[in-house]
Amino acid sequence: MKKITILGSTGSIGRSSLDIIEKNPDLFQVVALTAGRNIQLLKKQIEKFRPSMVGLSNKESARKLRENLPAKTKVKIVSSKEGLNEVASFHAADIVISAISGSAGLIPTLTAIDAGKDIALANKETMVMAGDLVNAKAREKNIKILPVDSEHNAIFQCLQGQQRENIHKIILTASGGPFLNYSQKQLKAVTFQDALHHPNWKMGKKISIDSSSMMNKGLEVIEARWLFNLDISRIDVLIHPQSIVHSLVEFIDGSLLAQMGIPDMRIPIAYALTYPARIHTHLPRLDLGKIKHLEFQKPDIKRFPCLKLAYEAGICGGTMPVVLNAANEIAVEMFIKGAINFVDLPRIIDKVLDKHDSVKTPTLEDILTADEWARAQTRELIERNISW
Amino acid sequence: MKKITILGSTGSIGRSSLDIIEKNPDLFQVVALTAGRNIQLLKKQIEKFRPSMVGLSNKESARKLRENLPAKTKVKIVSSKEGLNEVASFHAADIVISAISGSAGLIPTLTAIDAGKDIALANKETMVMAGDLVNAKAREKNIKILPVDSEHNAIFQCLQGQQRENIHKIILTASGGPFLNYSQKQLKAVTFQDALHHPNWKMGKKISIDSSSMMNKGLEVIEARWLFNLDISRIDVLIHPQSIVHSLVEFIDGSLLAQMGIPDMRIPIAYALTYPARIHTHLPRLDLGKIKHLEFQKPDIKRFPCLKLAYEAGICGGTMPVVLNAANEIAVEMFIKGAINFVDLPRIIDKVLDKHDSVKTPTLEDILTADEWARAQTRELIERNISW
Repeated sequence: MKKITILGSTGSIGRSSLDIIEKNPDLFQVVALTAGRNIQLLKKQIEKFRPSMVGLSNKESARKLRENLPAKTKVKIVSSKEGLNEVASFHAADIVISAISGSAGLIPTLTAIDAGKDIALANKETMVMAGDLVNAKAREKNIKILPVDSEHNAIFQCLQGQQRENIHKIILTASGGPFLNYSQKQLKAVTFQDALHHPNWKMGKKISIDSSSMMNKGLEVIEARWLFNLDISRIDVLIHPQSIVHSLVEFIDGSLLAQMGIPDMRIPIAYALTYPARIHTHLPRLDLGKIKHLEFQKPDIKRFPCLKLAYEAGICGGTMPVVLNAANEIAVEMFIKGAINFVDLPRIIDKVLDKHDSVKTPTLEDILTADEWARAQTRELIERNISW
Repeated sequence: MKKITILGSTGSIGRSSLDIIEKNPDLFQVVALTAGRNIQLLKKQIEKFRPSMVGLSNKESARKLRENLPAKTKVKIVSSKEGLNEVASFHAADIVISAISGSAGLIPTLTAIDAGKDIALANKETMVMAGDLVNAKAREKNIKILPVDSEHNAIFQCLQGQQRENIHKIILTASGGPFLNYSQKQLKAVTFQDALHHPNWKMGKKISIDSSSMMNKGLEVIEARWLFNLDISRIDVLIHPQSIVHSLVEFIDGSLLAQMGIPDMRIPIAYALTYPARIHTHLPRLDLGKIKHLEFQKPDIKRFPCLKLAYEAGICGGTMPVVLNAANEIAVEMFIKGAINFVDLPRIIDKVLDKHDSVKTPTLEDILTADEWARAQTRELIERNISW
């Protein structure tokens, strides 16, 4: 019986994780959950999974939850940063699913590692912002970081039983998002609602927009750099609009291994939770004889410059990826509010990156400072309406 | 330094193996070779690779070779069945590449296993005819059987680091051969020269014809059954005309692993020779961004009934696959001679299978008897011109 804490249980990954857990009551038990504002769903999850502890990102939500729960419900409710860290380090857990969206996932994930928990990592910002630190801590605490992102989970599967020195490169596939075949002119006119229509995956708002700009793939390149400890130059991106080949590893002999499956996050989540075993997911099976074609193309960094920015930030290293991520988070927020256009996203991020003096081998404090700085810079740039 | 014997060094697999060996003189050394009738090529191979021993399948060829070699050449020349077995069990070898075409490969391969040599297996008939015996001997002698066939090598790669009980099924890809999209009517008119034009692989005559009838894939299904110790019902065939995805493994969770690469036998041969390491093959790399499409379709057993016959023989087991293989060898011989038509191949084989009383868990003697019986039956059927 594996005891599980989920950081971010009401999000897309959190809900899929609970679906896997619910269908395998002999294998898994939920011990703690955290959520942001979705009190109604968290309440249902508490009633169904009976965790010992739940954490809310703010006090007001915690108060509302307590009011909504029957008085007899046995659950410790905590809140704010301290509360989330209490959940992340909750002693009863064997593994912590890190599924909070965005940079807010970093500290709770580091806290869980400090507490010696294995991590099923869906929060890519943890690695983008602090990959080097996270790896050092993971080694120190002798814990496993199991990738949940479909691409990284695919790479992880392909690397089983293989020797590191035989890796030539890894190839992250990218659907290309809803604007894959849009002209530069069409891209100028897209709205954030358009960006939410991802062709294959149902995901949260932020990641859907990142997919449409290909910043998501850029962040994944940096994440892969740390997860698999490879130079950025050995990480390629390949457009594959159907999201069936989830990623590939190319070996020095010219042989490639690819992991495939229907686009359903429950497959990589289950693998991260059961590794090195596997369980029946009872999902529809991939039938290549029915699908008939798999399509691939090279990415176009002219129309999707966010990918290029991410490669540049990743190659520069230090705090540059922190700034990339923070500037992108603010820019996406502003895009959702209608304050900027889709094509402004890379221009703004580029400006902020340009202004940043990267700190080599940063401490956690350096990382948080760079994050704050980049957010302020991005807001200022947009608010002042400086031409970018 | 790995010391290598090649059974069948002048054939397609033998030549590709020597190419790998030649390019990696620090890793590999040839200690013995065998060939059939291609004395000229064997002579060149002897001069280049300096084996201690060579075996010819008949005395006449051995005599010719001795005449052609400079008197000072230090090589022991042996011939006939006893000679081939002497080479197969030659003490200096660490690994024996079993690359003789057809059922003639069985005895030398068994001899090499008896001598405690690891086997790089390209001769599928060894497993088709005597898989159970071979596995028992391999266990007894504690040797490895490393698949060289691109499909089985692909499966072998996909299974590294995976738990057996997690396999849902294995999926062998098939190019479908040169007649993939031929109508029944068109199939009636094809010649053996047409059958030799394999779209992707340059191979020997027999295997090219088997590919065009899909008997090759049928034999591979039976081979896979023994190599991976799986029930035939868990082995599927998927048409993939480009021969880039060399095969796949589907796991119980719905996840698939696929091995890909350009269609060049030097990749699987190198892997079999260096496993679990890999070496640079310096071959062109697969570029999916350039290839753009991978195509798949379900096999059509109505137009390619040889595949169905192989499944049936495989499910029946015992000596039935021996008869399938022997009847096919003779029928293909007759097709090359123009004595029968392409569409007669499955009809004749079916007739012979129908007549056979399968021996369950056969001894080697039972296997050789069934092989002889099937050859005689097939010849008789064709010579008497009995309507099939």
